[in-house]
Amino acid sequence: MSEKPQTDDRRPVPRTASGFADAFAETVLGRNRMIASIAEVYARFGFEPLETPAVEYLDVLGKYLPEADQPDLGVFALRDDDDQWIALRYDLTAPLSRVYAQYAQQLPKPYRRYQIGPVWRREKPGPGRFRQFYQCDFDTVGAPGAAADAEVCAVLAAAFDALGLAGRYEIRVNNRKVLNGILERAGIFEPDRRTTVLRAVDKLDRLGLDGVRDLLGPGRKDPSGDFTRGAELASDQIDRIVGFVSAARENRRAVCDAFAALTEGSADGEAGVAELREIDALLTAMGLGDDAVVFDPSLVRGLAYYTGPVFEGVLTFETTDENGRAVSFGSVAGGGRYDDLVERFTGERVPATGASIGVDRLAAALRALAADGAEAEMGPVVVTVMDKSRLADYQAMATELRGAGIPAEIYLGGGGFRQQMKYADRRRSPAAVIAGEDEFAKGEISIKDLRLGSELAAGIAGREEWRKGRPAQQSVARTALIETIKRILSDD
Amino acid sequence: MSEKPQTDDRRPVPRTASGFADAFAETVLGRNRMIASIAEVYARFGFEPLETPAVEYLDVLGKYLPEADQPDLGVFALRDDDDQWIALRYDLTAPLSRVYAQYAQQLPKPYRRYQIGPVWRREKPGPGRFRQFYQCDFDTVGAPGAAADAEVCAVLAAAFDALGLAGRYEIRVNNRKVLNGILERAGIFEPDRRTTVLRAVDKLDRLGLDGVRDLLGPGRKDPSGDFTRGAELASDQIDRIVGFVSAARENRRAVCDAFAALTEGSADGEAGVAELREIDALLTAMGLGDDAVVFDPSLVRGLAYYTGPVFEGVLTFETTDENGRAVSFGSVAGGGRYDDLVERFTGERVPATGASIGVDRLAAALRALAADGAEAEMGPVVVTVMDKSRLADYQAMATELRGAGIPAEIYLGGGGFRQQMKYADRRRSPAAVIAGEDEFAKGEISIKDLRLGSELAAGIAGREEWRKGRPAQQSVARTALIETIKRILSDD
Repeated sequence: MSEKPQTDDRRPVPRTASGFADAFAETVLGRNRMIASIAEVYARFGFEPLETPAVEYLDVLGKYLPEADQPDLGVFALRDDDDQWIALRYDLTAPLSRVYAQYAQQLPKPYRRYQIGPVWRREKPGPGRFRQFYQCDFDTVGAPGAAADAEVCAVLAAAFDALGLAGRYEIRVNNRKVLNGILERAGIFEPDRRTTVLRAVDKLDRLGLDGVRDLLGPGRKDPSGDFTRGAELASDQIDRIVGFVSAARENRRAVCDAFAALTEGSADGEAGVAELREIDALLTAMGLGDDAVVFDPSLVRGLAYYTGPVFEGVLTFETTDENGRAVSFGSVAGGGRYDDLVERFTGERVPATGASIGVDRLAAALRALAADGAEAEMGPVVVTVMDKSRLADYQAMATELRGAGIPAEIYLGGGGFRQQMKYADRRRSPAAVIAGEDEFAKGEISIKDLRLGSELAAGIAGREEWRKGRPAQQSVARTALIETIKRILSDD
Repeated sequence: MSEKPQTDDRRPVPRTASGFADAFAETVLGRNRMIASIAEVYARFGFEPLETPAVEYLDVLGKYLPEADQPDLGVFALRDDDDQWIALRYDLTAPLSRVYAQYAQQLPKPYRRYQIGPVWRREKPGPGRFRQFYQCDFDTVGAPGAAADAEVCAVLAAAFDALGLAGRYEIRVNNRKVLNGILERAGIFEPDRRTTVLRAVDKLDRLGLDGVRDLLGPGRKDPSGDFTRGAELASDQIDRIVGFVSAARENRRAVCDAFAALTEGSADGEAGVAELREIDALLTAMGLGDDAVVFDPSLVRGLAYYTGPVFEGVLTFETTDENGRAVSFGSVAGGGRYDDLVERFTGERVPATGASIGVDRLAAALRALAADGAEAEMGPVVVTVMDKSRLADYQAMATELRGAGIPAEIYLGGGGFRQQMKYADRRRSPAAVIAGEDEFAKGEISIKDLRLGSELAAGIAGREEWRKGRPAQQSVARTALIETIKRILSDD
């Protein structure tokens, strides 16, 4: 819905803060249903919920955002009354590391927790870029083995399955140690150059093999004419990296074999391959085949932070946007192993692994998927008010409906019948109950089928069907209220 | 759990921000269950969800807090990059008024919305006083009649019923217009004196009739010696007010009759009584008798803001705290009609009515109520790791359990059997699955019943029962995993 500013400047203009958005009924209900499904999956895998406050000390949040050169850049921060800086959390990982360090003695170890909630980023607002959004994280802290990493994949797969996305997603896995091994074997040691190479690899999906090759060599000019400097590798180095990103992907085992050949002699690389082999075996034991979880050499996921396996959950279907263009949703979840997050507080390295599902992106995908033929959320049955002196009778009807588990309300606004029907339409009511003087005299009520009207408008039901026995409005005995409404609700 | 500060001052101390709290599994699950129940009731009455962002412009929030003499006092505020002040919302009503003014054209009218979420107050932290807490609001905007007010009572009652509190609560109702009528008839017009009188009336529960009488007259010295100045009313004025607060309360009709006699001749007072009579009739039509909803002359609910009926949801049972003292929970919900909230933005008076349930207080009450004999939240089944080379087999067992809908996990930490059992205990696991070399050789698994252990410890199950057929640990065929665990889970 669009903003409607007031012009009288003695009064505040009713407006949403810049970069923030209001969520109305359909969005909230869709998101909550999704979150409930995901939480159920997390719990099934033994994760327990945690809810940290929105506000943390700034030094506790630390500097995880790459853009955080200044202490309050990227986060909404203010000075508390005792002069300490406090800020809105910008992710759910920093609070987790704080909690683990703070309650180390009381928490079960390993600590498996999930947390679902909004995070805040102080970024320049732009179209579709919001400064508050939901994250849905799960992490296992204190488990060093590949079994915990394999589980991250299994949890993501189960979450997508629970949302009805079976066959429409792919979990991609790589290992930072393998990437390091490849770089080592290619003789690339200088940190900046390593970063440039990883950035190039990360662009395989977008630029293809030739584009990556350019970025590994002298550089690349994009169609707009902009030039990106390359890593200036020697041609044998380029061949090695290109051989890596284009490694056989028939199945996880084939990728592991190719990785093994490419990293032989690098301790880091060999350790990474061994982890991937173990993850492969555990995934198979959990019933996750090569269709659901793939090993992807080009998966990088950010440049710092992760220390071993990295994960990404990708939606593999396309939908069309309102202009008829194909839209691919791509990555809706990501994570990996990070073994030095708690160290900042305690000096002790604690192994941790997990992932985060981006609720809003995933919700958009589910909406797009459901857009064909799906019915919108239905509203309450509206009991119209034809005679103000009969409010108690109308309220009794609404109470009866609610008692039968049917959301219902009496119309509480002003205006006549037409306005009440308009209201019922806006609320997407399946039916309206109408009772005036005549009906009360006869012990009857009229019931208007509003689903039929909207189906006719949407071209779902034909005029035929209407004639065949779904009357748009019918008079029934007052005592037949519940059964009549139930019939309308169950009519598909 | 208590904070455990680090002493090494080169590192940040892991600590929760002052006045904020972490919520662990049991608290989060309890709160979410409660919120889901309440949301279901709100929806049944035709309210639709709204979720506004945590951050609003400060001028949009306005000055609703009585302590807000300075613009950023009472709220967490900061300057955005464009120099506008933004702040964390301190309630859910100010955002509602903003939304209604901003989207007036697109919203259904009346607009019935509910919103559930945290709010933030910048107050001096103290024991049990938190700066972030949940509210659970529902309001009808644009409905002037008493039917909307009657519904507020019905929604509150239905919400308490849904939480299993039937017979343990009371909805109290009064009308600000009646209070004004009484003051008018008593000849009290001066605003400060009116405030002093209402404050005195509000204290009936705590001080009794004599205390109120003192506060209406010269003043009152409390047991500690502190003196509170009184309203210094004449004795006939005092008699009138005391007659009002001690009005007959046998039933709603009797209160209305008493109110009518006391406010006769005051236009405001008579209008208030008429509203209460209409509310009474509608409540009766909705099946809400004098036991569930009472009219309470001494109910004031704050000094400004409300313009007609006011509501309070009170828990009427007592529990004992950890020191064995009786604790009465009192008010856990409140609201009323406020007809000038949107006016601030638009200049137009829009009638609104609603209430808010205090989630955290109510959750505490439910916890106290459930404390006798209730079982704590159960954790996942733990598949122990006796042989690291068998991880895939263990993971397959966990997968099988999850497939049967049973939360399960394999132990991912270090340490031997004892440590794994300690972990299962901390997670409140109902059972542990144990399989070592012997078991694998025989195609068997051992299952340890951990519920029995905790029941024995809690004195719920007797040794008798144990002997009778609930073995603490049993060996079964590997194929009997699910049925054995299910038997343990269903054993009550």
